[in-house]
Amino acid sequence: MANEKTLDDLFLETLKDIYYAEKQILKNLPKMAKAAQSDKLKAGFEQHAEETEGQIERLEQIFEMIGKAPRGKTCDAILGILEEGKEIMSDFKGAPALDAGLTAAAQAVEHYEIARYGTLKTWAQQLGMNDAVKLLDQTLSEEIATDKKLTQVAEASVNQKAA
Amino acid sequence: MANEKTLDDLFLETLKDIYYAEKQILKNLPKMAKAAQSDKLKAGFEQHAEETEGQIERLEQIFEMIGKAPRGKTCDAILGILEEGKEIMSDFKGAPALDAGLTAAAQAVEHYEIARYGTLKTWAQQLGMNDAVKLLDQTLSEEIATDKKLTQVAEASVNQKAA
Repeated sequence: MANEKTLDDLFLETLKDIYYAEKQILKNLPKMAKAAQSDKLKAGFEQHAEETEGQIERLEQIFEMIGKAPRGKTCDAILGILEEGKEIMSDFKGAPALDAGLTAAAQAVEHYEIARYGTLKTWAQQLGMNDAVKLLDQTLSEEIATDKKLTQVAEASVNQKAA
Repeated sequence: MANEKTLDDLFLETLKDIYYAEKQILKNLPKMAKAAQSDKLKAGFEQHAEETEGQIERLEQIFEMIGKAPRGKTCDAILGILEEGKEIMSDFKGAPALDAGLTAAAQAVEHYEIARYGTLKTWAQQLGMNDAVKLLDQTLSEEIATDKKLTQVAEASVNQKAA
């Protein structure tokens, strides 16, 4: 039997993947905030946790638009990325380079999200889902802004302390 | 005992992480090229495999600069990201949306690399390793260019066929 899976199927699979990923990230952010040494980085993680809640709601709206119940699907990528963050938290606990490591771990998470939301936005455009495009674009912009903020943190205080 | 790990330690750990990741990517790219339906995507994966070999050599030069033997360290993140690509290859085998899925999988890989090389470059700057900065920047530029090419592929032919 021919495999007839279309872009609609791929869109739904990837939506489930990032929905699962966002929920894992939301669970992880308070741990990152607790571990961070600098107040600025701590506040950044706390703020991003709030933002993540809004991003999860947007995904739920998109599930509704396509008539599906919001459901996640185990995302090995985010589990691996978060696992590396946990290793940093444990290996660099109390060390001068801890915050630099946490910042790097967070940027790996952001880049995973940027890749997925970029892809979903392109597909939503091709599928003519204009309302979904708007929601995906809002989240994509937030993720890019968060990544830029983390770069500034890395370039400024955090790493100079570690060096 | 106090944990004294510094940015030098973090730099070395992350160098090992991306060294392992690049080798896994190099192993995976021929499979992606073989699976791709469009000649353009196939050629893109083949070209990126060649580029990856050069990127691995640059990492080996950096290991040499810091007086360490090149050694990888299992990178759960890239294993998870590549695992998702393998799922796409199997679930969408022969399907209209296969190339769109492969392109998305490759962009997740690129974004992981962009995050890691961006971080390593910032740290190398702070550690005053100017020759390493140049090498890391070359690779970072290549990864960003590859990601842009994949976006063009996604926006043009591949996905329209799938829709």
